[in-house]
Amino acid sequence: MQPPKGTRDFLPEKAEKLQKIVSILRSVFEKYGFKPLYTPAFENFELLSAKGGLGEAVKDEIYYFRDKGNRELGLRFDLTMPLARVAASNPNMQKPFKRYCIDRVWRYDNPQAMRYREFWQGDIDIIGSKSLLADAECLAAAVECIEALGFKDFYIRLNNRKLLQAIIDIYAKEKSKDAMRIIDKLDKIGREGVAKELSSIGIDGERLVSAVTVSGENKAILERLKGRFGENEGLKEIEKLLSYAKTFGIEKRLKIDVSLARGLEYYTGIVFEVFAGAKVSCGAGGRYDNLIKNISGIDTPATGISFGIDRLLEILESKKSAQKNSYERVFVADIDLKKDSIKIASDIRKAGIPCELDIMGRKFGKQLEYASSAGIRYVVIVGKEELKKKSVKLKDMKSGKEKLVKLSALQKIIKNILLK
Amino acid sequence: MQPPKGTRDFLPEKAEKLQKIVSILRSVFEKYGFKPLYTPAFENFELLSAKGGLGEAVKDEIYYFRDKGNRELGLRFDLTMPLARVAASNPNMQKPFKRYCIDRVWRYDNPQAMRYREFWQGDIDIIGSKSLLADAECLAAAVECIEALGFKDFYIRLNNRKLLQAIIDIYAKEKSKDAMRIIDKLDKIGREGVAKELSSIGIDGERLVSAVTVSGENKAILERLKGRFGENEGLKEIEKLLSYAKTFGIEKRLKIDVSLARGLEYYTGIVFEVFAGAKVSCGAGGRYDNLIKNISGIDTPATGISFGIDRLLEILESKKSAQKNSYERVFVADIDLKKDSIKIASDIRKAGIPCELDIMGRKFGKQLEYASSAGIRYVVIVGKEELKKKSVKLKDMKSGKEKLVKLSALQKIIKNILLK
Repeated sequence: MQPPKGTRDFLPEKAEKLQKIVSILRSVFEKYGFKPLYTPAFENFELLSAKGGLGEAVKDEIYYFRDKGNRELGLRFDLTMPLARVAASNPNMQKPFKRYCIDRVWRYDNPQAMRYREFWQGDIDIIGSKSLLADAECLAAAVECIEALGFKDFYIRLNNRKLLQAIIDIYAKEKSKDAMRIIDKLDKIGREGVAKELSSIGIDGERLVSAVTVSGENKAILERLKGRFGENEGLKEIEKLLSYAKTFGIEKRLKIDVSLARGLEYYTGIVFEVFAGAKVSCGAGGRYDNLIKNISGIDTPATGISFGIDRLLEILESKKSAQKNSYERVFVADIDLKKDSIKIASDIRKAGIPCELDIMGRKFGKQLEYASSAGIRYVVIVGKEELKKKSVKLKDMKSGKEKLVKLSALQKIIKNILLK
Repeated sequence: MQPPKGTRDFLPEKAEKLQKIVSILRSVFEKYGFKPLYTPAFENFELLSAKGGLGEAVKDEIYYFRDKGNRELGLRFDLTMPLARVAASNPNMQKPFKRYCIDRVWRYDNPQAMRYREFWQGDIDIIGSKSLLADAECLAAAVECIEALGFKDFYIRLNNRKLLQAIIDIYAKEKSKDAMRIIDKLDKIGREGVAKELSSIGIDGERLVSAVTVSGENKAILERLKGRFGENEGLKEIEKLLSYAKTFGIEKRLKIDVSLARGLEYYTGIVFEVFAGAKVSCGAGGRYDNLIKNISGIDTPATGISFGIDRLLEILESKKSAQKNSYERVFVADIDLKKDSIKIASDIRKAGIPCELDIMGRKFGKQLEYASSAGIRYVVIVGKEELKKKSVKLKDMKSGKEKLVKLSALQKIIKNILLK
C-alpha cells in the first residue's frame, strides 16, 4: 500500500509547503511577463529521443510504454522538450514567447536521498530572442524567486559553453566531448580525480584542470582569461551578461565558474546553476539555440532556467525557519445544535475564512480535542444560552481564554484576529 | 509534432483559464477546511485493479506499463483510488480527513468531443465520517464552486444507491447488477431503450422504468416513493440529507432522480451528479463506505465529489461571458535606452505589477506593435527628453492617449490604473 518505488505522496502538511513554493514562483514568473503552458505528462517517444535531449540513452532513463494503438510513448523527463515541441509546431507564435511551467517530470533514476523518480520542476523559458538580455531576464527572475523563498545565502555559477569549448579545444581538441563530460564531474570527484581521468585518455589533465578552475572575483577572472586566451566570443558574452545583470541589480549573485559544463547536450551559450542553502544545486539553465531547430528545422533561439522544486522544498524544510503555513482556520463546536452550527459555519465561510464544523457526531469535549490536535487556534462555541443573546463564545485554544461575541460581529472579529 | 493522440496542450490563453478555474475551486475547498494531497501520477497496478474501482476491465481502460524493475504500473484513472491507498496505509490519521486534489488523470478512452485521454479532476473527499452531514458538506462546497465559477443555471441530481437497489430488487432481484447497468444508460438511450433492454433479459422493463423515473418536486417524489415502497433506509437518508442541505441553503439545487446509478461500483449510499450550462455533466460523487475497507480491511467510511475541470472549462468557454483573464501587464518601450528600461521595469515589478520590456532588440515602432498584439494596454515609453525631467510617457494603447508621468509616481499610477 505504498506509492510506487521511487515516488512519494505529499500529505497535507508537505503539500501545503509545496503549494506555497509553487505559488511564490508563479507570482514572480508572472511579474516578469511569463505565461503558463501545460503539456501532457507523456510525449511521443520520437520527441523524447530527439537529438539534443538526454541523448541516445533516453530509453534507459525514462518510463517508456506503448498505448493500445501500439504508439511509442514516454513520461516526459523534463519540461523543455515539450516546450520545444510546442514552439516547433507553432512557428508563427508571437515572439518572444515567454512561458512558465511548474509541473511534474519523471526519470527512472536510482532512488536516493533528495532524488525521486517523480519530481517537480519550475521552468521559465524565453523563445525567439537571441539577446543576452533574455538570459539576464531569466537570471533576474531566478534571483527574485530565491529571495522570495526566503534564502539569503545563495549564488549562481555562471559560464559560457563557448568559452569552455574554446579552452578544451586548446588542450584536447580531438577528444573535446570526452573532456567536457569528465570536467562536468568536478563537483563529484574533485580536481585530482578529473585531472587523473583526463590524463588517462591522453589529455594534459593538470593543465586543462588548472585552466578551467580559475578562482577569484568575476572581474579578475575575466582579466586573467582574456590575458590567457585572448578575445573570445564566450568571454564577451559573459561580460555583456554581467553588465545587464548589474542593471538588474543581481550581479553580486553571479560567480563565474569556467568549469561549469551542465550535462545536457543542448546548451549552446550561457549556462548557469543555482546553489542555495548548504551549497545544494536547486536550479540550472542556459541558452539552447539549436534544440528547436533540431526538431522543426526553423532557427529558433531559446534560453531558460529550471528549478528543482523538491530540492527547494527539502532545503526549506531543513532550515529552522521552515515556514509553517497551514492557512488559518476556525472550528465551530456545539452541543446538539448542529443546524445553528451549520449556519454559523456557512456565514464564516462566506466571509472567506476557512472553517470546519463537527461532522463526526462527536461530543463537545472531543470536538475541542480535535480542533486542538488539528492545530486550529480559534474555536467558535455554539451554546443554547449564548444563542438566546444572539451570541457565541470565541475560544482561543492557545491561551484558553473565551469571550462572548455577537453573531452580527463574528465574521469581522475573526477576520481581524486571523490577520494579526 | 503534435501531442500524443487523445491529449492536448494548453497554450497560454487556455492555460490561464484553466488556472483560474483551479484557483477558484481551491479557494472554496480550503474555505470548507479541505487540505491538499498529492499522490504520484502512476500507481501499482495492484491498486488500480483492486475491487471497487473500474472493475476487471481496468487494464483496457488505463495506460498500463512496467518499470525497468518489471513492476506493474498504471497511470491513475481517478484521484479516489490513490486517496483510498493513502487512507488505507495511514489508518491512524486524524479523522475526519478532508482532502482536496486538483490534478490530472488518464484513461484510454476513444477520443471524442470534450473527452481526452488526459484530463483534469478537482476532488474533495471526507474520510472517516459516516454522517450525512459529511455528504451535505461536500454538496455545499460543490454548489459554492459552481456559483463561484459564474454559473447561474445548474442543478445536482441526487439519489441513494440503497433506494435504487431496493426498487430494483422488487422487479429484478436475480439480475439486479444487469438492471443497474442498464438503468444507468437512461440518459443515453432513453426510457424506451432502457425498458426494451430490461425486457430482453426477462425483467418487467416498463414497470421498473416507471418506478425509477418519478418526476416532480423533491417533496412530492418522497411522498410518492414512501407510499409505494414504504419506509426505506435510502429514502430516510435522502430526507435527512435534504434537511441538512436546507440549512446549508443549497436545497433548491438538489433534484431527486431515483434512476441515477453512477457507473462506479464503489458507491454505497448517496450519489449525485452536477449538471451545468447546457445540461452537461461536470461533476459527480457520492458515498463509498467499502472502498478503503476493500484495500486495508479497516472499516473507513468515505464520501466525496469529483469535478471534471475540462468540462467546466469547455462550458465556460462556450458561454459568451467567457472571462478573459490575462493578468494585466505593462510593457516598457524605449529607443536605445535599454539600461534605463531595465531599471524602470525592475521597479514596476517590485511593485508587484507584471511587466515586460523589449528583449528582441526591436525598433521602437515594432515594440509598440508587439505590445498591441500581445493585448497589453499600457506602455511606458522611455525617452531621452523625458528622462531629463525624471519622467516617462505612459501610453494607453486603447485610446492612443499619452501622458507624462514622474518616475517617482509611476508605480502608484500604474497600480491605480490596473486596479480600475
